[in-house]
Amino acid sequence: MTKKPLLLLLLFLQVGLVAQAQQEPVDLDAVHRIKQEGLQNSQVMQTAFYLTDVSGPRLSGSPGLMRASEWAKKQLTDWGLKNAQLEAWGDFGRGWEVEKSYIALTAPYYQQLIATPKAWTPGTDKEISGEAVLVQLDKEEDLQQYKGKLQGKIILTKIDEHAKTTFEADAKRYSEEELHDLAMSLEATRSQSRWTPERIAEYRARMALRNKAAEFFQQEGAAVILSSRGGTHGTHFTSNGAAYAPNAKAALPEMEMGLEDYNRIVRLLEAKQPVKLEVNTKTRFVDNDMKGYNVIAEIPGTDKKLKDEVVMLGGHIDSWHGSTGATDNAAGVAVMMEAVRILQAAGFKPRRTIRIALWSGEEQGLYGSRGYVKQHFGDPATMQLTKEHEKLSAYYNLDNGTGKIRGIYLQGNDAVRPIMEAWLAPFNDLGATTTTIRNTGGTDHLAFDAVGLPGFQFIQDEIDYDTRTHHTNQDSYDRLQADDLRQAATIVASMVYHTAMRDKKLPRKPLPKPREAS
Amino acid sequence: MTKKPLLLLLLFLQVGLVAQAQQEPVDLDAVHRIKQEGLQNSQVMQTAFYLTDVSGPRLSGSPGLMRASEWAKKQLTDWGLKNAQLEAWGDFGRGWEVEKSYIALTAPYYQQLIATPKAWTPGTDKEISGEAVLVQLDKEEDLQQYKGKLQGKIILTKIDEHAKTTFEADAKRYSEEELHDLAMSLEATRSQSRWTPERIAEYRARMALRNKAAEFFQQEGAAVILSSRGGTHGTHFTSNGAAYAPNAKAALPEMEMGLEDYNRIVRLLEAKQPVKLEVNTKTRFVDNDMKGYNVIAEIPGTDKKLKDEVVMLGGHIDSWHGSTGATDNAAGVAVMMEAVRILQAAGFKPRRTIRIALWSGEEQGLYGSRGYVKQHFGDPATMQLTKEHEKLSAYYNLDNGTGKIRGIYLQGNDAVRPIMEAWLAPFNDLGATTTTIRNTGGTDHLAFDAVGLPGFQFIQDEIDYDTRTHHTNQDSYDRLQADDLRQAATIVASMVYHTAMRDKKLPRKPLPKPREAS
Repeated sequence: MTKKPLLLLLLFLQVGLVAQAQQEPVDLDAVHRIKQEGLQNSQVMQTAFYLTDVSGPRLSGSPGLMRASEWAKKQLTDWGLKNAQLEAWGDFGRGWEVEKSYIALTAPYYQQLIATPKAWTPGTDKEISGEAVLVQLDKEEDLQQYKGKLQGKIILTKIDEHAKTTFEADAKRYSEEELHDLAMSLEATRSQSRWTPERIAEYRARMALRNKAAEFFQQEGAAVILSSRGGTHGTHFTSNGAAYAPNAKAALPEMEMGLEDYNRIVRLLEAKQPVKLEVNTKTRFVDNDMKGYNVIAEIPGTDKKLKDEVVMLGGHIDSWHGSTGATDNAAGVAVMMEAVRILQAAGFKPRRTIRIALWSGEEQGLYGSRGYVKQHFGDPATMQLTKEHEKLSAYYNLDNGTGKIRGIYLQGNDAVRPIMEAWLAPFNDLGATTTTIRNTGGTDHLAFDAVGLPGFQFIQDEIDYDTRTHHTNQDSYDRLQADDLRQAATIVASMVYHTAMRDKKLPRKPLPKPREAS
Repeated sequence: MTKKPLLLLLLFLQVGLVAQAQQEPVDLDAVHRIKQEGLQNSQVMQTAFYLTDVSGPRLSGSPGLMRASEWAKKQLTDWGLKNAQLEAWGDFGRGWEVEKSYIALTAPYYQQLIATPKAWTPGTDKEISGEAVLVQLDKEEDLQQYKGKLQGKIILTKIDEHAKTTFEADAKRYSEEELHDLAMSLEATRSQSRWTPERIAEYRARMALRNKAAEFFQQEGAAVILSSRGGTHGTHFTSNGAAYAPNAKAALPEMEMGLEDYNRIVRLLEAKQPVKLEVNTKTRFVDNDMKGYNVIAEIPGTDKKLKDEVVMLGGHIDSWHGSTGATDNAAGVAVMMEAVRILQAAGFKPRRTIRIALWSGEEQGLYGSRGYVKQHFGDPATMQLTKEHEKLSAYYNLDNGTGKIRGIYLQGNDAVRPIMEAWLAPFNDLGATTTTIRNTGGTDHLAFDAVGLPGFQFIQDEIDYDTRTHHTNQDSYDRLQADDLRQAATIVASMVYHTAMRDKKLPRKPLPKPREAS
C-alpha cells in the first residue's frame, strides 16, 4: 500500500502525462475467468488441427483455403458467434493447387529429391525425363550461348547459398536483454529496415533478369526450371513462380528445393558429370471464382450506447502451399478463434461488438485486410473515410508464428502505452512484459494503421520461424507450441475484452495524409 | 629448459611407469611436412565428392558401393599406392537399390510426403492408391481384429515419438569439460552402455512382434507398411526392412518417414478423417554376386627388416541408402584416403608397410572388417591366430562422423597411452588433446581388438551426427565439415607414419580368451 503513490508517480513520468493521468482500470475478476478458460480448457490445438492437418495447404484462392474458411465459419457459429460469413473483399485471381509432385535424380544414380512446385506454375502433366543443364546467368546476354540447346532440358542456375552446419539452435526465445532493447530503441524494426532502397533495386533487377530468363527458357522449349531459395535438412522455402492474374501468361513448370539437393546437381554438372532427372508434377488452376474472401464473425455488443462500436481481432488464414501453414498463420488464426471461444465460454457480455476477421490474400500483399479496410473504413490513397471509421476502437493482429506473446508493438501511438501496460500487467508472469513504441511491418494491422485506426501486432517469440517454418515445406502442425498458443489466446481474449468494455475507444494517432498527396 | 625434468616426472607419474620410461620420439620435421600437405593442399573434399555425390548411396552389395569401391581402388592406384584391389571377405547376400520412391497424401487433400523405402523391401512396382489404416499393435492378439480388413490397405501403427522443437543446436563440439570427463571417467562410453540387457530384451520383443505383424499384414494382402524411426523437418532415419540373405522370405513394400508426415496421418485417422495415399516405389535386387568386398591398397614398407610388418588404417565405405552416407562414412573413408595421399605426396618412405582398408558390410555387423581379420589375423571364436597376426602393429579407424579429431580411445591399452600422447602433442593446437583409456564400440576397430590386435578409433566431435546425419536421408555432401576433415586427415597421416617408423610395434594387451570358451 505504501508504495502506491511512488508507483503512480513513476508511471506518470514514464508516459510523460503528468497532468490528467489516471490509472487504466483492469478487471481482475474477468482476467481470472479468462485465464481459467484459456489455460485450463484450451481448445486451441484442436482448432489448429482442423486448420492444418484437416484443411491442408491454404494458398489464396485454393480449395484448401475455402475448406478452412468454411470450417472456421461453421466452428465460430457453433461457438455462438453471430453473423458468421465469408465476405468478399474484392477480386483476387486464379486458384491453384498441387495434384502431383515428384522429382528424382536418375543419373548418375537414382535418388528421390525433396521439392515443391512453385505456386501458380503448370505441371509437367506426365512423367518426363531430361538432362539437367547449369545455366550461367549473371546478365541477360549470358542467355544467348544457350540458344538451341535447351529443348527438353531441366534448367538450374548457380546460387551463392550453401547449406551451413550451425552450432546455434534453430529455435529461440527473446532474452530479457533483447526485450529491453526492443522496448528502448528508436531504430526501426528489422522487418522494416530489411528493405533498404538498394535492396529493393537489387531485388527488382534480379526479378527482371529472372523474368527475361524464364521467357527465354520457354521459347527454347526447356522442360522444367529448378531453383532454391534456401533451406536445409529436407526443409526448403517456397514461393510463387507465376502470376495468379486471370490473364497471366503461361509459364514453364518450376520447382523449388533445399540447398543440399540443388547444390548436389550443381556440383555434379560443374564436374562434368551428366545428370538426368525425372519429374512428374500436376497442378490445377481453379477459375470458377476469382473473388477473395475473409471470414467474419461477431460477438454482438450489449451496451445500448456502445454496441455499434467494434473491437476487431484477426490474422490471415491463407498460407503458402508447401505445407499446411501452421505457424504462418494457422497459429494466429487458432489463437484468435480461441480468444473469442474463451470469451463465449466464460459467458461475457461485452459492451462493444467484438468482431473476428480471418484474412485471405495476405501473402500476396495484405489484400484481404486492405480490401476490408477500404470497404468498411476508408481509402488510404484519398483518406476518404466511412462512418464505420469512427466506430472502430482497435484491431489486434497475430501473425508472427507460434511463439507466445511477449508484449505489443504500439505502432508509434504514445497514448495507448499506459493502457496496454495496465492490461498486460496481469500477464507479466506469463512472459508478456514489453511495450515498444516501434512499428512492426509485414502483416494485416498495417491496413488499419494506414487509415489512422489503432491496429496492433503483438511481440511474439520467434521460435524457429526464420529457420524452419516461415514459408517452408515444413510449416506443419508439429511446429506449433501448444503452451505458447494457450498463453497467446488467453492474453488476446483479455486485451480484446478490456477494449470492448472500456468507457472510451482507444486513443488514436493523428490521421495520416492521403497517400496520393505524398 | 628448466621445466623439462618436472614435465618428465609428471609424465611418469601420469602413466605409472616410473622405471624404464623413455619419452616417445616424435619426428617434428615429418609432422611439419604432413601438416603442409594436409592443411595447405588438401584434396579431402574432392575425394568426398566422388564418394558421395558421384557414387550415390553405397548400401552393402549395391551397385553404388561397387562404383565407389572401384573408384577408390583406381584413385589409390593413381596416387601411387600398390596392390590396390577389391578383396572378397566372404558371402554377404543380395544387393539392392531404389529405382523409384514416391508417396503422397491424396485425401483429405494432396500433399507429397518425404519417405524412403526400407532397405531390401520390394517396391509396389506401379502407382497404387490405398486407404491408410491405423493398426493398434501392443501385443500379437491385437492383430486379430484386423482379419479380413487390410486388403490393399496402407498400414501405420501408432508411435510414441513426436517432433520436438528444441532450443538446442543440432550440432555441437566437445567442450573442454566434456573432454576432461571423457579422459577421466571409468564409466563405459555411451555407445556401449546404451545396450543394457533390459534394452536388448525389449528390442528383441519389439522385433518379434514387428515380424509377426509383418507376416500378418502380408497374409491379409496389405499394400504397404509405413513406419517412422524419428527425424524432423524433412530429415528421417532409415534402416533395413527385410533380410538380404539369398533365401530371405518375400516381404511387403515398406517405407520410412519423418515424424511430422507420419504423425499427421495418425492424427487424421484418430480423428476419423479418412486418409488416402498414393505410392509408387520400385526397388531392384542384384543377385549376380553375393560376395562382399573390401578395398585394400598399400604403401610398401622400405626397411628390410620391417617391411613385412604392417600398419593399417581404414573405415567402412558402405552406407545406408537414404542418402549418400556422407558422415557415415564417406567422411572416414575420405580422411583415410587423404592420409595416405598426404604420405605419398610428401614423399615419405615408411619403414613398415602402410595398408588402407575400406570395409563393406559394416552397417550389417562389421562384416567386412571381421571377415578380413578372420582371414588374415585369426578367429576370435577359437583364438587360432595366423602368422600375419604377429606382423600387424596397429589399426586406426575413423567412423564417428565429420567431426575433427579430439583425441583417441586407447581401448583399455595402458601401454600405448604415452605413445599416443607424444604423437598427438604436435596436434594439440588443432584440438586433438585427449586420450582416454575407454573402449568405444560400434565400428570396425572392434574386429581387430577382438583378436588382441591394437585397434583404435579416434575421438571425434559429434557435430550433428545424432540429430541430422547418422543413418538419415540427409547424410549428404553438405553435412561434411571441410576444415574438420582436413584436420583429421593430417593427424591420421602423422599417427600412421609414426607407427610405421617406430622401432618396435605398438605394445599389445594380453590376448583375449577364445569367445567359444567364455
